[in-house]
Amino acid sequence: MHKEEYLFSKKKVSYLFDYSINQLQQLVDGDIILLTDQTVFNFHQQKFAGYKTIVIEAGEAFKHQQTVDKIINQLIEFDADRKTMLVGVGGGVVTDIMGYVASVYLRGVEFAFVPTTILAMVDAAIGGKNGIDVGVYKNMVGTINQPKFLLYDNSFLQTLPTEQWINGFAEIIKHACIKDAKLFAELQHNSIEKYKNDAVLLAALIQKNVSLKTNIVVNDEFEQGERKLLNFGHTFGHAIENLYQVPHGNAVSIGIVLAAKISEEINNFYSVEKDSIVALLKQYQLPTTLNVDKGNVFSILTKDKKRVGDNINFILLNKIGEAVIQPISITQLEDLMHQIL
Amino acid sequence: MHKEEYLFSKKKVSYLFDYSINQLQQLVDGDIILLTDQTVFNFHQQKFAGYKTIVIEAGEAFKHQQTVDKIINQLIEFDADRKTMLVGVGGGVVTDIMGYVASVYLRGVEFAFVPTTILAMVDAAIGGKNGIDVGVYKNMVGTINQPKFLLYDNSFLQTLPTEQWINGFAEIIKHACIKDAKLFAELQHNSIEKYKNDAVLLAALIQKNVSLKTNIVVNDEFEQGERKLLNFGHTFGHAIENLYQVPHGNAVSIGIVLAAKISEEINNFYSVEKDSIVALLKQYQLPTTLNVDKGNVFSILTKDKKRVGDNINFILLNKIGEAVIQPISITQLEDLMHQIL
Repeated sequence: MHKEEYLFSKKKVSYLFDYSINQLQQLVDGDIILLTDQTVFNFHQQKFAGYKTIVIEAGEAFKHQQTVDKIINQLIEFDADRKTMLVGVGGGVVTDIMGYVASVYLRGVEFAFVPTTILAMVDAAIGGKNGIDVGVYKNMVGTINQPKFLLYDNSFLQTLPTEQWINGFAEIIKHACIKDAKLFAELQHNSIEKYKNDAVLLAALIQKNVSLKTNIVVNDEFEQGERKLLNFGHTFGHAIENLYQVPHGNAVSIGIVLAAKISEEINNFYSVEKDSIVALLKQYQLPTTLNVDKGNVFSILTKDKKRVGDNINFILLNKIGEAVIQPISITQLEDLMHQIL
Repeated sequence: MHKEEYLFSKKKVSYLFDYSINQLQQLVDGDIILLTDQTVFNFHQQKFAGYKTIVIEAGEAFKHQQTVDKIINQLIEFDADRKTMLVGVGGGVVTDIMGYVASVYLRGVEFAFVPTTILAMVDAAIGGKNGIDVGVYKNMVGTINQPKFLLYDNSFLQTLPTEQWINGFAEIIKHACIKDAKLFAELQHNSIEKYKNDAVLLAALIQKNVSLKTNIVVNDEFEQGERKLLNFGHTFGHAIENLYQVPHGNAVSIGIVLAAKISEEINNFYSVEKDSIVALLKQYQLPTTLNVDKGNVFSILTKDKKRVGDNINFILLNKIGEAVIQPISITQLEDLMHQIL
């Protein structure tokens, strides 16, 4: 059990590593309401005993306004007021929705997260970005607002299905690509199985990734510069994720390959390093290609939140461990897509 | 034409008095999308010519999530991006919804207001509180976020129906009650007709109320103390507004009378001052009583955003021009309601 604190622009956020969800009531004065999804609830029902709990359907397909409406109605029924602490217990969908609801319910109430997947632990639950999808457009609506704390209880990982482990490693590999060549090398020497079977190794990996992402966000909470680097692989990734109902990590993996190819094409990124990335993604059982309709993908790209006028801010690699922001015009992007897809 | 600037916690907000909506394009770099309602649009169609405009149905009954959903879909169709400025042109419903949508669309884009009613000019458009209703519960969902500027174009008032003038004066009388005995005296010596027929007197009244409210908010943007005073008359007001479909100003007027009676009952507020308030409300054609179902009203009161645990922070008067925050328990409130209603 150890605690780290980071100072964001408006809030101090505590990271509680090696804690148990059973300690929640000790950490919070006053009422708690939990939000989770059907899958987590079914596997860990006893952990929710005694708490007012809102259970939503599991999956990205439910990360939309109708789910938000249901949660708000339940909060009203539960008499949630400005002293109530809302805690999202789940993967990225649960933490994204919980952060969003807590930011707008009664114009904002306090909230915290217990991330239960690798993806949420190392990425989704960190940094305060929350939100919901609108149709095929990812995270079109949301806010940036930090939770009071994140509680890491790795016992949730015991029931995490293999595809969710794979999903989470896409973001870990992304972190290595943009910021940490040593982490890239560590990953090359290990495997999902190895991390699954070595709790100490896994805990260290999670904490390294938490601190890597958190440091980027603390320096640039409102994404004026460095934080944009975390979008590596996500511009294409988001476009294909909802269009083809691909799990987030798989979509990001394919997006990473495309961004690496564009880096090779227009940023002098070495072909051999691109090959190492593709190999590492495969080593972690992630897909590296997908048959897509270029027209459909392109039309979604033009709606990307990162578009500014006629440009999309694209993240490219200089080398493994070092990324750069590069505005690419919509026209050039269309050409590049036809070249590399 | 003159400009005032106020520094809120995170943003500088400009107030542009005696401007024309025709100057909008000069004030903004880049794309503008306007939001208005059917009533304003019908009366002032020529003012919207050449702008991408989203028109919603008029009235508090449409201040809900379905309207937000429609607006977001239209913003996506209009290709609104992070450089787009959203401008709400209308009364409090339009500015509340515009502020809310702009706070969550793409996790936040810039926005401004052109308030077109007395109520919006002196109250609703000021202070950054935005939001929507959930069922009968007012403003259950929203954020606090300041617009870039407010543009005052009093030509919109030429088409404002009398009941909307009356509606706006409820908030002006509220301001006088809680903060400004001189304003109270000025109001006693005038009438709606007089303000309607004297553009200079009216402009001065609006600016006085704008600065009164803005100063309170600047000192306490997130409503930890003084800003709560602005809720005078609003706890009961909000409870009856949606339950009985009463216009906001009328509901507030009735709420002011009840709060004045409670002040008399438990805060030594002089009976003669309470009578002056009732008389002034009547002078401005506002209702001072309503037959209500006490049970229904009470059940909504218990869901008030201002409730904290078993107490509601109630605003009472010490004297005309001076208000105080007083926590009242739910039980005491129920007793008081039976006494005064």
